[in-house]
Amino acid sequence: MIYIALVHYPVLNRRGETIVSAVTNLDIHDIARVSATYGIAGYFIITPVEEQQALVHDLTAHWLKGGSPNSDRKTALSLVHVVSSIEEAGSRIVEVSGASPRMIATSARVQEKCISWRSLRKDINEEKQCSTPLLLLFGTASGLSDQVFEQVDGTLEPIEPGREYNHLSVRSAVAITLDRLLGRSFA
Amino acid sequence: MIYIALVHYPVLNRRGETIVSAVTNLDIHDIARVSATYGIAGYFIITPVEEQQALVHDLTAHWLKGGSPNSDRKTALSLVHVVSSIEEAGSRIVEVSGASPRMIATSARVQEKCISWRSLRKDINEEKQCSTPLLLLFGTASGLSDQVFEQVDGTLEPIEPGREYNHLSVRSAVAITLDRLLGRSFA
Repeated sequence: MIYIALVHYPVLNRRGETIVSAVTNLDIHDIARVSATYGIAGYFIITPVEEQQALVHDLTAHWLKGGSPNSDRKTALSLVHVVSSIEEAGSRIVEVSGASPRMIATSARVQEKCISWRSLRKDINEEKQCSTPLLLLFGTASGLSDQVFEQVDGTLEPIEPGREYNHLSVRSAVAITLDRLLGRSFA
Repeated sequence: MIYIALVHYPVLNRRGETIVSAVTNLDIHDIARVSATYGIAGYFIITPVEEQQALVHDLTAHWLKGGSPNSDRKTALSLVHVVSSIEEAGSRIVEVSGASPRMIATSARVQEKCISWRSLRKDINEEKQCSTPLLLLFGTASGLSDQVFEQVDGTLEPIEPGREYNHLSVRSAVAITLDRLLGRSFA
């Protein structure tokens, strides 16, 4: 079972200070649709701000309970769970699966405990992921704070580290990451 | 040289009727950033509606001419060109490169003249793309109209055709497509 989390705290601003970022509507929709496409078991929106949590609840409720004929959107948004912290996302996964997830962060820069794309894709394909759930963490704003990289089991290598320009939106980064890990192999 | 185009006409609505879709702010930003990451030569926003063209001009001018310190965003948005039609995008490419582009459409469904991921990636890696520019067309709303598939040189195979859920946003589809064609191979 693979879960993903969009982290709004703790993340960095452009000056490298730890902040709480604001939830955005399109992050919820785009990433929920990518999650549904690649068979993600749950998509956690992480924010400690109660008003922001309520915003996500209202937004998903609009699509899930409303009379909208757009059932594709319902399928995607049914994956969304709002939690206060990375720890709470972990606890929720334990409740559902009975096992603590292996927590893997993502970053545009190489971090310690770096895990290669090939290695994580191989882990996912092999049987051990049947018993250990995986939680992939994505940072909003200018990325996850250092304290997150310290607490996780490892960090996935950057998407295109050799490129001159390296400023993907988190929406694009999630799409590319899930495709690389779970998409059809056509190489 | 590889170019991409985000097509707002002719595209389909949910009922399969050909419409002009509205330009959205985040499509411009997200896809410009993906384009800059993967070394795209130009990103065409295609709409015949003059007000919409003006909107894109205003939005990019804000970032390109403004005093914003966000030069990463400037780099990305400098790739954006607004044109009225797919034909005009082709003409612009001829002006710059001296050659007509090979036009490849994209679709969530298998179309005629289907080109595999492997084949197009191979074409890009081989020398022939040095002389023939490539223009990749992405449809907004519910996808490109049939007339586009008839006029192009081929259509790329869908991203994850075997999946039950197949409703990526165009932003996610562009990110995954450029990564599959131009990203690091790590298989």
